Amino acid sequence: MHSIVKEAPGPGAVYREWPVPKPGLQDILVEVEATSICGTDMHIYDWHESIRDKVKPPLVIGHEFAGKVLEVGKEVSELREGDIVSGETHIFCGKCYQCRTGNAHICERMKLRGVDTDGCFAQFHVLNENTAWLNDRKIPVEVASAQEPLGNAVHAASQADIPGKKVAVFGCGPIGACLIGLCKSYGAREIFAVDIVDYRLKLAKDMGATRILNGTTDNVVDEITKATDGHGVDAFFEMSGAQPSYEQGFRAMRAGGMAVLFGLPSGNVQLDVANWIVFKDARVRGVFGRRLFGTWYQTASVLKAGMVDLSKIITHRFDMEEFAKAFALMKSGRCGKIIMYPNKKKSTRS
Amino acid sequence: MHSIVKEAPGPGAVYREWPVPKPGLQDILVEVEATSICGTDMHIYDWHESIRDKVKPPLVIGHEFAGKVLEVGKEVSELREGDIVSGETHIFCGKCYQCRTGNAHICERMKLRGVDTDGCFAQFHVLNENTAWLNDRKIPVEVASAQEPLGNAVHAASQADIPGKKVAVFGCGPIGACLIGLCKSYGAREIFAVDIVDYRLKLAKDMGATRILNGTTDNVVDEITKATDGHGVDAFFEMSGAQPSYEQGFRAMRAGGMAVLFGLPSGNVQLDVANWIVFKDARVRGVFGRRLFGTWYQTASVLKAGMVDLSKIITHRFDMEEFAKAFALMKSGRCGKIIMYPNKKKSTRS
Amino acid sequence: MHSIVKEAPGPGAVYREWPVPKPGLQDILVEVEATSICGTDMHIYDWHESIRDKVKPPLVIGHEFAGKVLEVGKEVSELREGDIVSGETHIFCGKCYQCRTGNAHICERMKLRGVDTDGCFAQFHVLNENTAWLNDRKIPVEVASAQEPLGNAVHAASQADIPGKKVAVFGCGPIGACLIGLCKSYGAREIFAVDIVDYRLKLAKDMGATRILNGTTDNVVDEITKATDGHGVDAFFEMSGAQPSYEQGFRAMRAGGMAVLFGLPSGNVQLDVANWIVFKDARVRGVFGRRLFGTWYQTASVLKAGMVDLSKIITHRFDMEEFAKAFALMKSGRCGKIIMYPNKKKSTRS
Amino acid sequence: MHSIVKEAPGPGAVYREWPVPKPGLQDILVEVEATSICGTDMHIYDWHESIRDKVKPPLVIGHEFAGKVLEVGKEVSELREGDIVSGETHIFCGKCYQCRTGNAHICERMKLRGVDTDGCFAQFHVLNENTAWLNDRKIPVEVASAQEPLGNAVHAASQADIPGKKVAVFGCGPIGACLIGLCKSYGAREIFAVDIVDYRLKLAKDMGATRILNGTTDNVVDEITKATDGHGVDAFFEMSGAQPSYEQGFRAMRAGGMAVLFGLPSGNVQLDVANWIVFKDARVRGVFGRRLFGTWYQTASVLKAGMVDLSKIITHRFDMEEFAKAFALMKSGRCGKIIMYPNKKKSTRS
Repeated sequence: MHSIVKEAPGPGAVYREWPVPKPGLQDILVEVEATSICGTDMHIYDWHESIRDKVKPPLVIGHEFAGKVLEVGKEVSELREGDIVSGETHIFCGKCYQCRTGNAHICERMKLRGVDTDGCFAQFHVLNENTAWLNDRKIPVEVASAQEPLGNAVHAASQADIPGKKVAVFGCGPIGACLIGLCKSYGAREIFAVDIVDYRLKLAKDMGATRILNGTTDNVVDEITKATDGHGVDAFFEMSGAQPSYEQGFRAMRAGGMAVLFGLPSGNVQLDVANWIVFKDARVRGVFGRRLFGTWYQTASVLKAGMVDLSKIITHRFDMEEFAKAFALMKSGRCGKIIMYPNKKKSTRS
Repeated sequence: MHSIVKEAPGPGAVYREWPVPKPGLQDILVEVEATSICGTDMHIYDWHESIRDKVKPPLVIGHEFAGKVLEVGKEVSELREGDIVSGETHIFCGKCYQCRTGNAHICERMKLRGVDTDGCFAQFHVLNENTAWLNDRKIPVEVASAQEPLGNAVHAASQADIPGKKVAVFGCGPIGACLIGLCKSYGAREIFAVDIVDYRLKLAKDMGATRILNGTTDNVVDEITKATDGHGVDAFFEMSGAQPSYEQGFRAMRAGGMAVLFGLPSGNVQLDVANWIVFKDARVRGVFGRRLFGTWYQTASVLKAGMVDLSKIITHRFDMEEFAKAFALMKSGRCGKIIMYPNKKKSTRS
Repeated sequence: MHSIVKEAPGPGAVYREWPVPKPGLQDILVEVEATSICGTDMHIYDWHESIRDKVKPPLVIGHEFAGKVLEVGKEVSELREGDIVSGETHIFCGKCYQCRTGNAHICERMKLRGVDTDGCFAQFHVLNENTAWLNDRKIPVEVASAQEPLGNAVHAASQADIPGKKVAVFGCGPIGACLIGLCKSYGAREIFAVDIVDYRLKLAKDMGATRILNGTTDNVVDEITKATDGHGVDAFFEMSGAQPSYEQGFRAMRAGGMAVLFGLPSGNVQLDVANWIVFKDARVRGVFGRRLFGTWYQTASVLKAGMVDLSKIITHRFDMEEFAKAFALMKSGRCGKIIMYPNKKKSTRS
Repeated sequence: MHSIVKEAPGPGAVYREWPVPKPGLQDILVEVEATSICGTDMHIYDWHESIRDKVKPPLVIGHEFAGKVLEVGKEVSELREGDIVSGETHIFCGKCYQCRTGNAHICERMKLRGVDTDGCFAQFHVLNENTAWLNDRKIPVEVASAQEPLGNAVHAASQADIPGKKVAVFGCGPIGACLIGLCKSYGAREIFAVDIVDYRLKLAKDMGATRILNGTTDNVVDEITKATDGHGVDAFFEMSGAQPSYEQGFRAMRAGGMAVLFGLPSGNVQLDVANWIVFKDARVRGVFGRRLFGTWYQTASVLKAGMVDLSKIITHRFDMEEFAKAFALMKSGRCGKIIMYPNKKKSTRS
């Protein structure tokens, strides 16, 4: 089958043939109809320092997808041939302390699709039923593929009390943009969106931000403080990992507020713990992945109800063969979510 | 001043002169611009069994209002002449266990405006600054008057996780209708509205219910169960106090769900505790009044953001002189919120 | 193997031979060292109306046990021969909405050990690894067997804020007695224990109740109210299902309090929803089973730390052959937990 | 009256005469029977950089005390002559957003006793009834004075789920030591105590720590990790503000764990947000002061039930005249809580 393969340590990847995988007793074989590129894929492609120890080439990369079930193992009970499924990236063991206490998303023996196992940038993909998600047939496959990052946003949004509240979102890439859409649909009174790329701020505006601020040229803290009568926002979401966001976010948050941290900074972050957290009697919450599978149910609801229009976030589409162009565009930052088609049938389902 | 006064035990009330009250050091004197009728007022008017021991005539009745501050006591610090205010019905002591632990809404020495003290069905009204609420000038006085019942709905809505969830509201009077509007603006995926009066079901539909059910003619439990793929709703709100609602609500609620109880049934309710609460590992929450003043802040946000259109709920307006007509209409059930004008200036502010 | 078998619909059971079960790929075969009798077993024995539709004879009954692993299936990864295990009664599917959202204890396709499958009143028992619990070897097998009811108490206790608070426990059978021990070890300031059997009240006292009240002869509400300066308890636990407990509990609970309902009343319960739940702005929580497996981890901690002395609750021990005596004693109510030994080796491990 | 007065900017303070204050209408006049020294007092005494902008000499310093009510203003309703009271340090306005939403402890117009107003290192002290706390007469006055720092510990402890859980406390001064006592009485399974002063570690041990670790000489993270089977603690409390504590605490915390931050670091703290907070899906909570007055009620319960033996933490007693010795001892770190007697009657009440 056609696949994008990381053949050896070092930058880049190749488009080549790879054996079609065979499903085990609890597995399903999926024909990948759409797959999308995530920041982690970019890191693997670039052979970024942060992933060098984790990825063991050669392997097929990629983890966001949607496709049709072609074959099911004998012990598969919930899925059938013809179903349209997506897959959770985090492959959990089901048996450790975290898995047994409802926290499979932080499984102690976690494996990652496309990192520890062959991924989905390929014509076919095999996965255990327990990480598969059955999609509503009315959802376009591109949207179904991109629902995983929407899921990150749903998990983040669940940590704060949003209806009627004032919030700020730092970082307006695809996940931040989804989050803005969620805040809007959850009834936030004000949504401040902060980024340093105008392309993304425009996207933020389209998704429902009531005020956009450029982190480079605007005085973010002053603007938010003024616009909230001196009190600050009830909650802020750090979705970028950029160092200045933490300072801006905590300073623009009111006493008794909530900070939701999703971005992955490289290296330590300087926090004024006394003034930003202790004196404010503040709550801070780290957010990782998606709750399995509470977040997926919630995400499916959000899509089904049309609460967030993911089609605004999906800005570019490529045949998988053109992956090099797709990655180059991704690197430029001038895009939302990028979809690739491994089987050259663009959006036949939508 | 003109007032509606309960002169003696027994049904009815009279429109008569009453001395203009004088504000104490911490009080404000308000010219009442709009006042609205609540179910409790109806009970007092009818001399309903449930309130006979509580009301001590003669007194001015009424507790929902909005008006202009004419005079402030010397120790008043947050309000000024000309401010437009409303008032919280529940007059708390500020010193008991509940008040000192953030639960002033269930104060151990609670007094009620228009029940224990003179109320606001009058040209002027005096209240302590600590139960006054400063309104945004852009809010019409009728809406400002009706924000107290909206506040009940806001308090109720705060008990459940609504975004992306399926909910049912039993009882679609003004508070239930407000709640439906809130559920919609908070991103509920489905909102089932149940009542036995078609007038109210129409109002529920207007406020955003996705499905209306007549408790008399529809099989409520079956319909909700079917429409939720056999699972039931994530949460239901009992806003009517009608006995069948409890059974319908609990049976239509999924395992692990949430029941929010606001309605005041007369007499005991029969609950199948084993099947509806224990086996379902369910949460139940009684909801009284409004949290002081967290609910008011949230309510003001909801109004300011235009999340609930109270003007749809305000269905009738009268000069206060015509109070008898207003109460008769209220009794018929064929109305939403009824506004009265003590000073014959209909909605000059909106 | 020797077993206690329900051979046909109707009261009673027989001690007879039954084929030793064979473990599947994901199963373990256990030699049962101790097994204990639960109220459900009593109901099955008596052929109580509540279970007639659920039990399909013939089958081995019983669900509480501890024993040694003799054999493991090929796909078992966490357990080994020689391990001492207990088992969760609730056999969950792992694939439904509840299971996939961390609520396997209310699985939509739940099966019950000893009801839907052969149980553990036998020399040997087979169970899937996913319902097995690995015990610390230092825990006596009798205690390990009885940790399931302790688990019910742990789940109940987790719903209320206990440290420094005043609580009441209605129903002082084994689970209620465990709960009293937990409340004490969690730092409750006052623990009122209510029952109608003096034997149980004595047990309650031994477990740490600060005040015992006989529901028949004491004025429970008055006594609790007086002893709490008129405020009532912060939380009450209904562990009996007896109708008067609900009234006593809700009336003895302070405004803003918490009611935890675990008992299974037969038939509807009359609740004064207005005065007990709504006006009190109260929280009510139904509690079913044990959270899988958060409650088990917590229970193991409680045992390991010696926080609750289960040996006080285990009041009688029998060879399994004497099951008829054991059930007769159980029926009398004059006992705590009853242990049976299927392999005639009384407490060799402790 | 005799008082300890900060006469001018700069280090030190003087023991001198100061006019007896007069109570206003809502105030009480208290004869101070015992007063205790807090870290803030030490900072004021030393004229530490952090407080220079806040303190406006001359004024009487001190804020922890207990004493007898000598006189009550006309509008005081809850207290009487002869009552034994303590006082909350944080003087709140009662009218701002935070005060009106149950968060008076982070009042937007907060004043501090002994910083913004005359304090209690004096024979007499005046305070508004709304910051006074009525003590049980059975509590010794020294303990009543020291209940404010116990209150900090109670507020901190309330943020984590302690019963049956493994916790670590970093910083074992008086507040940390109180917290250890609380964790023990709340049923923690393991309590790791970390400090760099052996005197304090001994105190920690006395209060119930199951394991003490010297932050300088022990490998704290390794020791805790090993002792928790590689998982880490469920929660840690940072009570010192020392930079290494944050790293040790977050690294020794399990995924899904809770970090409670109370210590006040000078300057920024370096946090590895990605690995310590995001990947761990962790919760972090800043803790300031005491909740007004929920924490005080809880603290009173803890004292009344004898759950924490504050007498172990009160290590030294002085006549107030000897304040210079007391402050020198405090500075050495070789002490727990230090009590001073302004009226030369050592512990007459206990």
